[in-house]
Amino acid sequence: MKAYLTRRYEFPASHRLHNEAMSEAENREVYGKCNNPHGHGHNYALEITVAGEIDQQTGMVCNLADLDGFVRREIIDTFDHSNLNTLPAFRKRIPSTENLCREIYEALKRGFQSAEVDKIRIEETAKNSFEYAGGTEVRK
Amino acid sequence: MKAYLTRRYEFPASHRLHNEAMSEAENREVYGKCNNPHGHGHNYALEITVAGEIDQQTGMVCNLADLDGFVRREIIDTFDHSNLNTLPAFRKRIPSTENLCREIYEALKRGFQSAEVDKIRIEETAKNSFEYAGGTEVRK
Amino acid sequence: MKAYLTRRYEFPASHRLHNEAMSEAENREVYGKCNNPHGHGHNYALEITVAGEIDQQTGMVCNLADLDGFVRREIIDTFDHSNLNTLPAFRKRIPSTENLCREIYEALKRGFQSAEVDKIRIEETAKNSFEYAGGTEVRK
Amino acid sequence: MKAYLTRRYEFPASHRLHNEAMSEAENREVYGKCNNPHGHGHNYALEITVAGEIDQQTGMVCNLADLDGFVRREIIDTFDHSNLNTLPAFRKRIPSTENLCREIYEALKRGFQSAEVDKIRIEETAKNSFEYAGGTEVRK
Amino acid sequence: MKAYLTRRYEFPASHRLHNEAMSEAENREVYGKCNNPHGHGHNYALEITVAGEIDQQTGMVCNLADLDGFVRREIIDTFDHSNLNTLPAFRKRIPSTENLCREIYEALKRGFQSAEVDKIRIEETAKNSFEYAGGTEVRK
Amino acid sequence: MKAYLTRRYEFPASHRLHNEAMSEAENREVYGKCNNPHGHGHNYALEITVAGEIDQQTGMVCNLADLDGFVRREIIDTFDHSNLNTLPAFRKRIPSTENLCREIYEALKRGFQSAEVDKIRIEETAKNSFEYAGGTEVRK
Repeated sequence: MKAYLTRRYEFPASHRLHNEAMSEAENREVYGKCNNPHGHGHNYALEITVAGEIDQQTGMVCNLADLDGFVRREIIDTFDHSNLNTLPAFRKRIPSTENLCREIYEALKRGFQSAEVDKIRIEETAKNSFEYAGGTEVRK
Repeated sequence: MKAYLTRRYEFPASHRLHNEAMSEAENREVYGKCNNPHGHGHNYALEITVAGEIDQQTGMVCNLADLDGFVRREIIDTFDHSNLNTLPAFRKRIPSTENLCREIYEALKRGFQSAEVDKIRIEETAKNSFEYAGGTEVRK
Repeated sequence: MKAYLTRRYEFPASHRLHNEAMSEAENREVYGKCNNPHGHGHNYALEITVAGEIDQQTGMVCNLADLDGFVRREIIDTFDHSNLNTLPAFRKRIPSTENLCREIYEALKRGFQSAEVDKIRIEETAKNSFEYAGGTEVRK
Repeated sequence: MKAYLTRRYEFPASHRLHNEAMSEAENREVYGKCNNPHGHGHNYALEITVAGEIDQQTGMVCNLADLDGFVRREIIDTFDHSNLNTLPAFRKRIPSTENLCREIYEALKRGFQSAEVDKIRIEETAKNSFEYAGGTEVRK
Repeated sequence: MKAYLTRRYEFPASHRLHNEAMSEAENREVYGKCNNPHGHGHNYALEITVAGEIDQQTGMVCNLADLDGFVRREIIDTFDHSNLNTLPAFRKRIPSTENLCREIYEALKRGFQSAEVDKIRIEETAKNSFEYAGGTEVRK
Repeated sequence: MKAYLTRRYEFPASHRLHNEAMSEAENREVYGKCNNPHGHGHNYALEITVAGEIDQQTGMVCNLADLDGFVRREIIDTFDHSNLNTLPAFRKRIPSTENLCREIYEALKRGFQSAEVDKIRIEETAKNSFEYAGGTEVRK
């Protein structure tokens, strides 16, 4: 009898999609305008879903103050107003929004204790969003 | 080969998060500003998802008129423009949005016949939403 | 370890809900205002979700250019600014949004190769949305 | 010391942009896909703004119940789930959203007594909106 | 050559529309469900618009940090998670959203120095919004 | 008797707020996180409002195809997926959203012939938006 809590956070950042292992022509072919040399940016809207039984005493799945504190410290302070390409997390991975989902999912899985992490969703633009929920089994 | 229909309803209400079994200090610690003695409120956006095969004759999963009638009678008339703390449903439960999801889910499960109730989702604010889908097994 | 990409497309169209196998009175009873003889219309917002592993080289689940090309050619060119009732797809099926989901899901399943099609979601209005994910098993 | 109240209403309808005084080729040139012979449709979102001083006794610019009653009777009952081309209002005028704004503005100016009508705004799609505020002077 | 900056803030609160100078029956007549004795609530979305020339050195109309600081201190700390009826501002005025606009407009006019206050807009629900811009002349 | 048409366009871009005429410390003081050396980005939502009488023959204020063509050629091709700091327009001006409004307003005023340009509005984030309408007189 689980309930799900989804909390939304927003932060702007920039990125450039470019793989140094590919030629310039291949990069332009694969990434199109997202390969522009000076980068571009987005307002990322991050939705974190946690799951759990409703605590009878508090009526809550998870205290929002706990989640907000963790996210501020471990996620927003790193990614907010950043250029994703310059961050350690993207030294070896392309800073696509798919990989940004995975980074954030893994940070929560490693450190967040107050409820089960269910999934991560990021809106990159009003037209594109991405979800990631880890695990070895096919999810959903 | 199921299809899913989600219908959105909106109603304002007020609530105060407070558990009389806890001390004043514990209540402030757990609920923060949501424990303010005079209460506060929200525009709750309720999304009800029902599931079923697409009826070949009508092309529908469920007639919206049936769903709207039930929801008006059994849910909106109770919760719209209310103070949740004063309602029978919350005499023994904290009027959190998690519990509001459960109340509404159970009301639909008890009385709605025209399609299978899949899940309830409530947006409490633009940043917080909650889902509930009952059952004894882990869902999703 | 799948990730999910959801892409949103919007197109206006008109339709009339009417089943010639039913009497005028039955049609009005079942469809209400949606049975108005001259039809009415909507801004349909179509969300297509595809799934797959994140490609290590590109950082992507699916190249958006591939998806956009397919959708433009096979879906938007057919349904955009159309009267659904006049299209071949709805010669034998009611042009409900449930059936529109199914049509689009099946077109993607038949022809789209670049990633697994996970589900189709259509917002008919700000209050009504529909999902379809095919398969013989109960989904979600 | 005026305040402004804006109230939002939504209704679906269909239309075809076509001027019988022009040739087929001219119609296609001017209206593009909006000239498709079988029409198409939209979810129109209508925002009505009324203005006035804040009544000291009630704290209101205008009682919403008055506005809702008028709009239901004089506007929604006419345009909701309609094909605009078949309505008397558009016998001699193109059923563009510009002209729909004007029709609604004029209906309010003629009949609504409870507050000054300031302007009409209609969202035709998520990308296009129109405003009309009548008068002989340039407004705004 | 002015530019306009609009900043959005959100806070939940509760209120009851009730005028003690009117009878119970009059209150119910004027306010309908908004007169429910235990109150109800909303997620108020406040938009503050300030105006000014674009500063050549900074490229700004107004430093957002200045505006955020003022609004936090003088407005959010007062109204966030409150019951409007219990606040000094509404001892003699009905806590309608029209009057809430006026209160906030006047607080900004009294104390905010970094740019000209142009107008206040509050969304009470997804359907109702209010604007106030003070002054003795008719605005807009 | 003017009507107003507002058309919305969206494009991502990156920028860094930094004035070389100020010291590092001054830049951090004025711009905060927006001064991060590697830049950050946004999904800019641009709304262009044009005004005019409703053409009796077409029912339009302005043909959307004309506006779309101009905007694509003169605005989107320049700013979409760009780093604003590298563009000629921002060689001598800070690439703030205020100045981006002005650039776009001036490009329309110089070259767009099909209707009067009324104003430019840009949403930088879900919380911040800016308007510009040129002219020597105070507008609105």
